[in-house]
Amino acid sequence: MVMAIKLAEIVNRLGGELQGDGETLIERIAPLESAQAGEIAFLSNPKFLPQLATTGASAVIVAPGLADSASGARILHPDPYLYFARLAQLLAPKTPTPMGIHPSATVMSELPGNVHVGAGAYVGTNVRIGANTVIGTNAIVGSNVTIGANCRLYPNATISHGCRIGAHTIIHSGAVIGADGFGFAREKDGHWVKIPQTGIVIIGDDVEIGANTTIDRGALENTVIGNGVKIDNLVMIAHNVQIGENTAIAACTGVAGSAVIGKRCTIGGSSNILGHITIADDVNISACTYIAKSILTRGAYTGSVPSLPHDEWLKNFARLRHLDSMADKIRALEARLKELENK
Amino acid sequence: MVMAIKLAEIVNRLGGELQGDGETLIERIAPLESAQAGEIAFLSNPKFLPQLATTGASAVIVAPGLADSASGARILHPDPYLYFARLAQLLAPKTPTPMGIHPSATVMSELPGNVHVGAGAYVGTNVRIGANTVIGTNAIVGSNVTIGANCRLYPNATISHGCRIGAHTIIHSGAVIGADGFGFAREKDGHWVKIPQTGIVIIGDDVEIGANTTIDRGALENTVIGNGVKIDNLVMIAHNVQIGENTAIAACTGVAGSAVIGKRCTIGGSSNILGHITIADDVNISACTYIAKSILTRGAYTGSVPSLPHDEWLKNFARLRHLDSMADKIRALEARLKELENK
Amino acid sequence: MVMAIKLAEIVNRLGGELQGDGETLIERIAPLESAQAGEIAFLSNPKFLPQLATTGASAVIVAPGLADSASGARILHPDPYLYFARLAQLLAPKTPTPMGIHPSATVMSELPGNVHVGAGAYVGTNVRIGANTVIGTNAIVGSNVTIGANCRLYPNATISHGCRIGAHTIIHSGAVIGADGFGFAREKDGHWVKIPQTGIVIIGDDVEIGANTTIDRGALENTVIGNGVKIDNLVMIAHNVQIGENTAIAACTGVAGSAVIGKRCTIGGSSNILGHITIADDVNISACTYIAKSILTRGAYTGSVPSLPHDEWLKNFARLRHLDSMADKIRALEARLKELENK
Repeated sequence: MVMAIKLAEIVNRLGGELQGDGETLIERIAPLESAQAGEIAFLSNPKFLPQLATTGASAVIVAPGLADSASGARILHPDPYLYFARLAQLLAPKTPTPMGIHPSATVMSELPGNVHVGAGAYVGTNVRIGANTVIGTNAIVGSNVTIGANCRLYPNATISHGCRIGAHTIIHSGAVIGADGFGFAREKDGHWVKIPQTGIVIIGDDVEIGANTTIDRGALENTVIGNGVKIDNLVMIAHNVQIGENTAIAACTGVAGSAVIGKRCTIGGSSNILGHITIADDVNISACTYIAKSILTRGAYTGSVPSLPHDEWLKNFARLRHLDSMADKIRALEARLKELENK
Repeated sequence: MVMAIKLAEIVNRLGGELQGDGETLIERIAPLESAQAGEIAFLSNPKFLPQLATTGASAVIVAPGLADSASGARILHPDPYLYFARLAQLLAPKTPTPMGIHPSATVMSELPGNVHVGAGAYVGTNVRIGANTVIGTNAIVGSNVTIGANCRLYPNATISHGCRIGAHTIIHSGAVIGADGFGFAREKDGHWVKIPQTGIVIIGDDVEIGANTTIDRGALENTVIGNGVKIDNLVMIAHNVQIGENTAIAACTGVAGSAVIGKRCTIGGSSNILGHITIADDVNISACTYIAKSILTRGAYTGSVPSLPHDEWLKNFARLRHLDSMADKIRALEARLKELENK
Repeated sequence: MVMAIKLAEIVNRLGGELQGDGETLIERIAPLESAQAGEIAFLSNPKFLPQLATTGASAVIVAPGLADSASGARILHPDPYLYFARLAQLLAPKTPTPMGIHPSATVMSELPGNVHVGAGAYVGTNVRIGANTVIGTNAIVGSNVTIGANCRLYPNATISHGCRIGAHTIIHSGAVIGADGFGFAREKDGHWVKIPQTGIVIIGDDVEIGANTTIDRGALENTVIGNGVKIDNLVMIAHNVQIGENTAIAACTGVAGSAVIGKRCTIGGSSNILGHITIADDVNISACTYIAKSILTRGAYTGSVPSLPHDEWLKNFARLRHLDSMADKIRALEARLKELENK
C-alpha cells in the first residue's frame, strides 16, 4: 500500500508557493529524469534545467525564478534541495520498531519499557537509555553508558563503557564509539608503554555517525562531538578531538588527536586533519586535502592533487623532487639577465 | 591428511603443456624460493627467473618461452599466474560447512534446508536465501533481503533491509551493506536535514566484498555493484554509485556518491573517485590517485605524490605554493630575453 | 571511591627524583592547564612551560633542567612523557573481568577456567586460549585459532580460522584478523579467478590492533605482525605483509601485499606503503605520505601535500600539469642566455 498526499497538503505542511493543481496526488519523490505520474521531482542544479521540460513528474519543486520553466504543477521555494529533504522526510514510510527486549539479548540494566533491544544485543550494567531508543541486533552498549531518547543504534554498533550519547542520534552498523585512543610513550629500547585512556566519548543530540566509523575515547580528558554533527562512513576521530555543532565530515576522513574543529564546517571525503590544530568555524575543506596547520579564518581550503594520464604524470610529478632547484635556477637567470640588461 | 595429485592429472584438468614426469605428486603450491619436494611453484615475474635454477619444487609452471630455464618437471602455460590461481582452487582444501540453523540464531523467515545460519546470526522477516549459502556467526541479514545461492557471509557481516545479493558472492567480516547514504540538506542556520535513503544496494553474482568495507544504500535510486566485481577491505562505496562488471577496487579507496565506474577497471588502493563523475570501461587508476573529473578514454591514470627524505621534502614541497609565480617569472624572463636578443 | 597514592610512593615504585613534600596525595593525572589539588601533571612539551607557574596541580613531573620552573612538589625525570605513561598505568583503575563463559556464548573447544568469554561470543573448534584472556561480547574466534595469555579481544572483534595471537595482545572492537587477502588472477575476458588464501595471520606478544582495522591472511605464506607492534584504527594490512617489532602505525594507513616493514618504525596516519617493497628499521614516515619504493636507510620520509586557500590552490596546483614544460623552458632560457653572455 502506498500513501499519497495532495500537493496542496504538502504546501500546507512545508510551506512554499503552490502553482497549478493542488489536488495533484503525490506518492513518491523521483529524479527529474526518471520521474513518472504520481511522483514529484526537484531542480536544484541548473545543469538539469532542460529536464524540466521533459520530466514525467506530476509536479516539480523549483526556485521562484524558474517558475516559468516548469509546465505543470509546481511548488516554488528558494531552496528546492532543502524542500526536497523536508518532503522526503514527510513521505518516508514510518515502520515503527516494536518496543521491548528480544529474549536473546543480554541486558544487565533496568530499561524503560519503551526501548527496543534487538536479538543478540548486549546492554551492560548501570546503563541509562531514553524513551523510544532502538538498540539494534547484536549491538553492544558497555557499562555506564548513557543514551538519550529517540536514538537508533544499528546492528553491530559498539558503544564502549562510560560514553554518553544525546537524543535523536543515529549510530550506523559497525561504528565503534569509545575504543582506546592510540596513546603510547616509548622506552629507549623501542618498547611502547600504553597510556591508559581514561576519558570517554561525549556525543551530542541529533548526531549521525556512519558505518564502520571509529571515535576513540579521550586519554585524560574526553572526545566531544557537538550537537547536529554528521559523520559519514569509515571516518576516524582520534582521542580528545572536539567537533563543533553542525559540522559535517565526509567518508574516509581522519582527524588526529586533540584537533579542535569549529562549528558548521564541511570536510570533504578522504581528508586529514593533523593533531593538536584548530579549525575555525565555517571552514570548508575540500576532498583529499591534508590540513597540517591551524586554520583561523573561515573560507575554503584545498590541497588535492590532480591526476593525469600515466605518461604525463611520469614526466611532471618526477619534477616535484626538483622544485627547489628550479626556483634556484630561475633566480640565477634573473640575476644574469639583469646584468646583461645593465650592460 | 594431505591430498596429492599427479602432475599429469593437473594438466588433464586445467590444460597447459606437460614436460617431464607426469607421475610427479603435488601436494601444495609454494613460492619458488621456498618450495620443496611435493610442492609446485610458478614464475610470473621475470625478476625471479634466477630462482628457477635453485628451486626445490617438484615442478614449476612457466611460460612456454622459459621452458628451457626449468630443469625438472614443468607445466607450460602462457599465463602462469592465472594457471596458479586455477590450480590453487583445485588444491584448496574443501571443508564443507554443515547446513542448518544454529540454535542460537534468530531466523524470522522460512529458509531452505540447505542453508547454514551460524551461531548468533540474525535473519529478518521476508528474507529469501538460495541453496548452499552460508550466513556466518553473528552476521545480520535485515528484512526483505534476497541472497542468491552459494554465497558466503562471513561472521559479523551486516546486510541492511531490502538489499539484493546475487549468487556465488562473498561478503567478508565487518562489511556493512546498505547503511544510509550520507545525504543532508542544510538549513540557513546550519542545521542539517536528513534525506531519507529509500534506495537499496544491488550486488551481482560472483562479487567479493572485503572486510569492513561499506556500501551505502541509494537515496532515491539504488547503488549497483555489477557481476564479478571485486572490492577489497575498508573501501567506501557511497550512495547511488554504479560499478561495472569485473571491476576490481583495492583497499581503502573511496567512491563518492553517484559516481559511475565502467567495466573491467582496476582501481589502486587508497584512491578516490569524486561524486557524480563517470569512468569509462577498462580504465586503470593507480594507487593513491584522486580522480576529480570524468575519464572518458581507457588507459592508465595516476596522481600519486612521490615521497622524499624529510629535508628534501621541506625544500621542494614548500615550492608548491609558488608554482604560479614561478611560471610568471619564466614568462617574464622569456620576454626580457627576447628583447635583449632582438637588440 | 578513589585511590590516592603518596608522591614518595610513586617515586619509590617508578623512580625519578622527588623534590618537595613526599606526603602529597595524588589521586589522578590531569593536564597542566586544568589540574587541581590531588592531581599530578607533567610537562613534556616546552611550549607549555608557562603553565608550570599557574597550574593547580599538587605535583608535576618535569625534566631535571626545569626543576626550578616548578614551584611545588615535583618529580624529576629525563622523559616526563614516559614517566606519565608509567604512572597512568599505576593509577588506572583495575576492574577485573569475572572469568567464565557467559551462558549465551557458543564455545566449541575446551577452555581453561580462567578465561572470560562474553555474551554472544563464539569460539570455534580446536581453539586454544591462554589464562586470563578475555573474549569480549559478540567477538568471534574461528576454528584452530591460538590466543596467548592475558589477551583482550574487545566486543565484535573477529579472528578467522587458524590465526595465531601471542600473549598480552589487545584487539579492539570491529577489528578483523584473517579475512581473505585480495588475490585474483585475470582471465582474458576480464573475469577474476580467486586465489584461495591459505596462509594465516601470526600476531606476536604485546601487540595492539585498533578498532575496525583489518589484517588479511596470507596467500601461500603468512602475514606476520611482530612483538610489540601497535596499530591504530581503520588500518589495512594486506596479505603476506611482515611488520617488525615495536613498529607503530597510525590510523587510516594502508600497507599493500607482501610489504616488509622493519623494526621500531613509526608510520603516520593515512600513509600508504606500496606492495612488495621493503622498509628498513627505524624509519619514520610522516602522515599522508605514500611510499612507493623501498627505503633502505633509516630516517624521516615525507610526501604530504600542503593545502592552500582554495583560490591559491586553483592557481598553483594547476601548474603541476606543466612542471615538465617549465623545466624545459628553464633549460632553454639558460642556453639562450649563455649564448648572449658569450657574445
